[in-house]
Amino acid sequence: MNTTLQDQVGGSKVDASWVVPFAAGRAADKNLLGGKGANLCEMTYIGLPVPPGFIVTTEACRAYLAEGDVPEGLLDEVMASLRELERDAGLRLGDPTAPLLVSVRSGAPFSMPGMMDTVLNLGAMPATVPGLIDLTGDARHAWDSVRRFAEMFGKVVLGMDEEVYTHQLREAVAAAGVANERELDAEQLADLANGHLAATARAGAQIPDDPHEQLRMAVEAVFRSWNGSRARAYRRVEGIPDDLGTAVNVQVMVAGNLGEDSATGVAFTRDPATGEPAPYGDWLQGAQGEDVVAGTRATEPLHTLRETFPDAATELEEHLHTLEQHYRDLCDIEFTVERGKLWMLQTRVGKRSATAALRMAVDMVDEGLIDQDEAVRRMRPEQLEALLHPRFADTVRDPLTTGLAASPGAAVGHIALTADSAVARAATGRPVLLVRPETSPDDLEGMVASQGLLTSRGGLVSHAAVVARGFGIPAVCGAADVVIDAKAGTVTIGDTVLHDDEMCSIDGSSGMVVAGEMELVPADDDPRLERLLLWADERRVLGVRANADTADDARRARVGGAEGIGLCRTEHQFLGERLPLVQRVILSEGEAEETDALVDLEARQRQDFIDLLTEMDGLPVTVRLLDPPLHEFLPDLDELLVAEARGELDAQGEKLLAAAQTHREHDPMMGTRGIRLGVLRPALYRTQVRALVAAVADRRRAGGDPRVEIMFPLISTEAELIWAVKLVRDEAAEAEVSLATMIETPRAALLAGDLAVHVDAFSFGTNDLTQMTFGLSRDDVAGRLMPRELELGLLPADPFRTLDAVVVGELVRNATAQGRAANPRLTVGICGEHGGDPDSIKLAHAYGLDYVSCSAARLPVARLAAAHAALEVTGPADSA
Amino acid sequence: MNTTLQDQVGGSKVDASWVVPFAAGRAADKNLLGGKGANLCEMTYIGLPVPPGFIVTTEACRAYLAEGDVPEGLLDEVMASLRELERDAGLRLGDPTAPLLVSVRSGAPFSMPGMMDTVLNLGAMPATVPGLIDLTGDARHAWDSVRRFAEMFGKVVLGMDEEVYTHQLREAVAAAGVANERELDAEQLADLANGHLAATARAGAQIPDDPHEQLRMAVEAVFRSWNGSRARAYRRVEGIPDDLGTAVNVQVMVAGNLGEDSATGVAFTRDPATGEPAPYGDWLQGAQGEDVVAGTRATEPLHTLRETFPDAATELEEHLHTLEQHYRDLCDIEFTVERGKLWMLQTRVGKRSATAALRMAVDMVDEGLIDQDEAVRRMRPEQLEALLHPRFADTVRDPLTTGLAASPGAAVGHIALTADSAVARAATGRPVLLVRPETSPDDLEGMVASQGLLTSRGGLVSHAAVVARGFGIPAVCGAADVVIDAKAGTVTIGDTVLHDDEMCSIDGSSGMVVAGEMELVPADDDPRLERLLLWADERRVLGVRANADTADDARRARVGGAEGIGLCRTEHQFLGERLPLVQRVILSEGEAEETDALVDLEARQRQDFIDLLTEMDGLPVTVRLLDPPLHEFLPDLDELLVAEARGELDAQGEKLLAAAQTHREHDPMMGTRGIRLGVLRPALYRTQVRALVAAVADRRRAGGDPRVEIMFPLISTEAELIWAVKLVRDEAAEAEVSLATMIETPRAALLAGDLAVHVDAFSFGTNDLTQMTFGLSRDDVAGRLMPRELELGLLPADPFRTLDAVVVGELVRNATAQGRAANPRLTVGICGEHGGDPDSIKLAHAYGLDYVSCSAARLPVARLAAAHAALEVTGPADSA
Repeated sequence: MNTTLQDQVGGSKVDASWVVPFAAGRAADKNLLGGKGANLCEMTYIGLPVPPGFIVTTEACRAYLAEGDVPEGLLDEVMASLRELERDAGLRLGDPTAPLLVSVRSGAPFSMPGMMDTVLNLGAMPATVPGLIDLTGDARHAWDSVRRFAEMFGKVVLGMDEEVYTHQLREAVAAAGVANERELDAEQLADLANGHLAATARAGAQIPDDPHEQLRMAVEAVFRSWNGSRARAYRRVEGIPDDLGTAVNVQVMVAGNLGEDSATGVAFTRDPATGEPAPYGDWLQGAQGEDVVAGTRATEPLHTLRETFPDAATELEEHLHTLEQHYRDLCDIEFTVERGKLWMLQTRVGKRSATAALRMAVDMVDEGLIDQDEAVRRMRPEQLEALLHPRFADTVRDPLTTGLAASPGAAVGHIALTADSAVARAATGRPVLLVRPETSPDDLEGMVASQGLLTSRGGLVSHAAVVARGFGIPAVCGAADVVIDAKAGTVTIGDTVLHDDEMCSIDGSSGMVVAGEMELVPADDDPRLERLLLWADERRVLGVRANADTADDARRARVGGAEGIGLCRTEHQFLGERLPLVQRVILSEGEAEETDALVDLEARQRQDFIDLLTEMDGLPVTVRLLDPPLHEFLPDLDELLVAEARGELDAQGEKLLAAAQTHREHDPMMGTRGIRLGVLRPALYRTQVRALVAAVADRRRAGGDPRVEIMFPLISTEAELIWAVKLVRDEAAEAEVSLATMIETPRAALLAGDLAVHVDAFSFGTNDLTQMTFGLSRDDVAGRLMPRELELGLLPADPFRTLDAVVVGELVRNATAQGRAANPRLTVGICGEHGGDPDSIKLAHAYGLDYVSCSAARLPVARLAAAHAALEVTGPADSA
Repeated sequence: MNTTLQDQVGGSKVDASWVVPFAAGRAADKNLLGGKGANLCEMTYIGLPVPPGFIVTTEACRAYLAEGDVPEGLLDEVMASLRELERDAGLRLGDPTAPLLVSVRSGAPFSMPGMMDTVLNLGAMPATVPGLIDLTGDARHAWDSVRRFAEMFGKVVLGMDEEVYTHQLREAVAAAGVANERELDAEQLADLANGHLAATARAGAQIPDDPHEQLRMAVEAVFRSWNGSRARAYRRVEGIPDDLGTAVNVQVMVAGNLGEDSATGVAFTRDPATGEPAPYGDWLQGAQGEDVVAGTRATEPLHTLRETFPDAATELEEHLHTLEQHYRDLCDIEFTVERGKLWMLQTRVGKRSATAALRMAVDMVDEGLIDQDEAVRRMRPEQLEALLHPRFADTVRDPLTTGLAASPGAAVGHIALTADSAVARAATGRPVLLVRPETSPDDLEGMVASQGLLTSRGGLVSHAAVVARGFGIPAVCGAADVVIDAKAGTVTIGDTVLHDDEMCSIDGSSGMVVAGEMELVPADDDPRLERLLLWADERRVLGVRANADTADDARRARVGGAEGIGLCRTEHQFLGERLPLVQRVILSEGEAEETDALVDLEARQRQDFIDLLTEMDGLPVTVRLLDPPLHEFLPDLDELLVAEARGELDAQGEKLLAAAQTHREHDPMMGTRGIRLGVLRPALYRTQVRALVAAVADRRRAGGDPRVEIMFPLISTEAELIWAVKLVRDEAAEAEVSLATMIETPRAALLAGDLAVHVDAFSFGTNDLTQMTFGLSRDDVAGRLMPRELELGLLPADPFRTLDAVVVGELVRNATAQGRAANPRLTVGICGEHGGDPDSIKLAHAYGLDYVSCSAARLPVARLAAAHAALEVTGPADSA
């Protein structure tokens, strides 16, 4: 977990001990005192009004759990600390005339909300009721405290069934003829409290009369709750170690429910949703903390506190300011007003929305609270991403279904079931959501015309997903529950039937599909973002380039801060209106026909490259030669077969069918693609190189500064690379282009030293390298297998999202080292999806790579993540 | 290359020198003297009648090539040796009255037949004709010698165009009105010889009058021919180093064409085709060696030599016996009878057929000529394989087409275009050749009923190929030129149209397809084979197990000498009549239906395992849990789609279509298969384990000794393996079964140390490991890409045939070392195709693996190859 300011506000004050009074600790002692306790100490230290108390340390807990018994000396220290509390308060635990009540709360080093146990009102027993009434003048409150204590102690410490108490409560409420327990009077509450005590005793689980014994038992119960099943499960999910233990906070009770002059609330030092620099919160008159949190009573906004409690409100405002200046971060507090007196019950660094995180990080620099390093640290890359895309204004509780989050952002539109209808409807100015089983190059125009895409098949590297991310169109893919009947014009999801042209909403960041028109929040355009990213740029070591295939992509990439193009996939220039040209090449018979077909393609590609290089003038551009299997440029074989069976195929269709059959492969990912295409159709590769060389010459004549690198895909032997280098050198002089090879087969990674001497650069294709190293096809396993493997813990994380550091990462590290040893001038980068993933970017930084390359849309995330890597930020910044 | 007996028959006699007389060398000096020269020395040494001569060494050649000139002292040594020849013969080179003729022949350390130059009859000039006539009394022969010398010297030494001489020859034959040059008389030959000399002079390429100068020039010409383009190309193909150089043999000419009392012939010490222990050969009366070899005149069988030349025949027989006793191997010689006197002109270790190799290796042990080590060494594993299958009796020159050699052996049958018609025709007792685009599990019955298979699609691991090898049915797969029109009932290959039921022949060892009915030679059943293999078994270190899926397979494997089953692919038990059961499991909805469907399957599998374990009682049996993607058990999706489009699908068909669509994958090789099937359908795996455990119990009750190991396929993470181990241990106790994991993903290979602690054994699935390490789909690239990559030298060899020692082999070696370091009791083997490949078996031996496992059909090859590895045999045994 990250070191937050919470840890930095004060140096440790304590030596290890079983018990630490609030006045003796500091925030930095979190591991020993727990998060809650350390912050109570810190507030005490800076003079805020904290009800007094002490902390039984995590060390005591660890000793207890190890020995199975309270460690020696602990009880003596607890009792000594208790005596100090009693002396300061002028009250005594169990004293019938001046009784002290304390809370006994868990508090671990990392927040585990609600996962462990708490006992409140310890000291409230029938014997102390007279004293309580003397102190507060409130008999109802006194008996309610006894009732609550009896129930909590019974449940938490003695392991009683909660139903015993709730049954009695229901009966009492019914017998009194009232709506709920708040309407029970003191006498009825006394009966109920005595009933709880008697029922507990009947079950053989006597609550001891001695409150010191109660305290001992309560502390032990909190210790034990560290190993409760819920707590263990939570820690497993959150990655919190099992050997930390919890501290126990013993604190004088204060009451917000002592009538009209008492209150309870929660507050933030700034608005956690918007980042607006003014206190924000809720409060309730005559209520306890749990009433505010539970939402059973309507709370008031914080600014109204002044109307009822002007002094407390002024004091609270001062305390909030003090806290934020002290912690130099957003603070989240609980407070109680007891008979007009303000008490601060808890504080922690506050969670915040992405919008607020950005605004506060930059504002606090301007306010002089934090430096730019810290501002960069404060913004998590994952949070940043949320800012970059439209999102649903409201939380979705029950989506129709959830598919793969294939391209981020939310979208709303009229359902279109064909690309043609999407184009037609978009032309009338209506927003369109294209819903298809899967997409093919034929659908491109319809995809671009749509606000969003939804497919029922295909994974995160399916055509739909790749194109959507490339064009920045939100997309949910592989939503297997979505059944599309194009003939009937319906989309059936579970029991819901949506019709063609009906409104539907998707969220490509979460994969959710929602019927109807969700309200959208547009992408943020806060100018603070660019300031933060420039600070990030000054700090990062890794270069950040973009994957961009066209001049439009390149323009977006440059605007997004790309320092070059790390991957230009020339195949993407072959789609859309170029498709017939490419098909002509594929269908060509004999060299003459092929050459003829290639002439057209060469001219168009030359212009593509000129446009691209114009946009990226002066920056490096890595152009990969054609990579995908040829069948990807042909219509879907299934559809052709069906059309033929129905007798609907014309002569050209028959030709395409024959070609699709010829080029079909069982495992195209490992088939005739990449450099192998070049080996089988060298004319295709030569054409690409010639087009590029001509473009470079054109740009130079125009006074430009084109910096081109030609990259070979899917190399697996040194001889292949030598062959490819010769092919390029036959067409291009040394000066015109530099050369790179993809490292995307395990064999290439393991042979890196031999390959490095032939090229100027390596680019790790970590998608394919992951697929081949695991023998795991990303698309095929995305829908059912990957979730199941993750659920069973058979994979540590989705290796296609975050680089597998254990093996694939080591291949990258070793190949980089061997490559550089053989060729010290080698440039090394990562292209592909991992290049935009924060955790993978940290690995790339650790491996000493030169750059990462990602889609233009993820550039801000990559720039920030690279800065985090350089600043050694190791986890989320807002954990409490 | 291998050290043959040829190298061992005598220790080296010579110190390095430019020139070595025949009497001064031995066979072991092959590198210095060349193969031909060393053997001439050896024959001289053992007292055989060799025409005297001397050798200019390879060292002299290397010096000449390095310096570009004749090294100092060489000519002096040549002239000194020549003078000795002259003295012994009582003749002198160029002497008009008693002229000596010599041959000047190349002779490299490795046989390069016809690749380098030779000059015969050196010393035959017009000036020496009178002396030649004096010596032989044959004017015609004298002038013919001059004519031949002029032509050869002109061509070889002076670089004249051959056409100059052949033109003169044609004119002389025409002018004389005879049929060919043999009918020209002495006068005509004299004119022709003088014509050759004049034409050479006219071209400015004078033949020097001084025969010593001729000799010097001829020696240099032979030296230079080492670097001729043909010789270089030959060495590249054969892998012979370029820096060896050639020796030059200068030898007194003897003539087999001096009339009725002369002859020439070739002989083997035994029959090289059958191995029968009696001399074998051909001869021609009054002829030269080239006449025998060229086949222009009909030769006589060797045994008839005695009728004309009784003394020479007896002497030859003695010499052949001497040679074989001396070389302790089959010898191949050339001989000449000159005026009744026998001369031995050349010997070398003879090439032999597979049948002969086996017979001779074993016979020579029985005769005490060689020991068992040597007998094992003598049989090449590749040769052995040819013995195991039927083969074409005649050499095929022009096959209709050549596909992939998918399952060895030749087959002849009536073409059947469907599995059903194959079954029907086979039932009438007719041999059937099943010809299909590709096969699916539906075709199984038809495949088994056929003599052979021919498919137009699919590679070496296609369904057809795998099943064919499993059942030992010859198959040619992926023959892309074969166009099958089932409706028309035709098979079109190029211009040839074969009809349904017509006869056709295939050779699954070479991939050839031949129209009509080829004559077949059945597989050998020579009992010597088993003797040789037992000798091999005593020598090998590697264990040899079999891949066997059924009790029938297991029986064949045990007969074939398997020491266990290294791989039982349980999926093969799911084919044929079981298919509907498996499909029921796949189609089942919900757990209850699945469980129900599995009950049937479990019972049948239990019986399968009982039968298998009965056959393999006492030997280890490694059973792999279900591996292939589920769609392999469903009908072909294309066919279902087409049937649906035509409205031909019933309800069950629709269900199968839906399932086929659900289970379709883009890259099934890396999709939901192996352990991932188990993760998604654990009930399927549990069923298999239960069936196996029950079978083990059943066998134990019956007093058997079942030794079962359960193996997990496609593991790529340690957590997967732990999960799988737990699944088995939930069903089976430690004692019942041991556990193994496949190492077939690069990730598993790189994590071997972590995996080894959880299992008892590793089995390398080198097919998949190769596919994933190269990112190369074996099936998809077999047809077009692989041949092209091999042709361009982009792959060193087909990595699916012979393990890639550079990377995949290193993965195997390192994983083995790491696995054993982590678990010293780990057993390590290879299953899959490489387990039956001799070169890969040598690697497995070198890596220290415990065993290889291969198909039953390849067991003899594997046993022999493993022995070769142990005996460190490094190359083919019959090279000369």
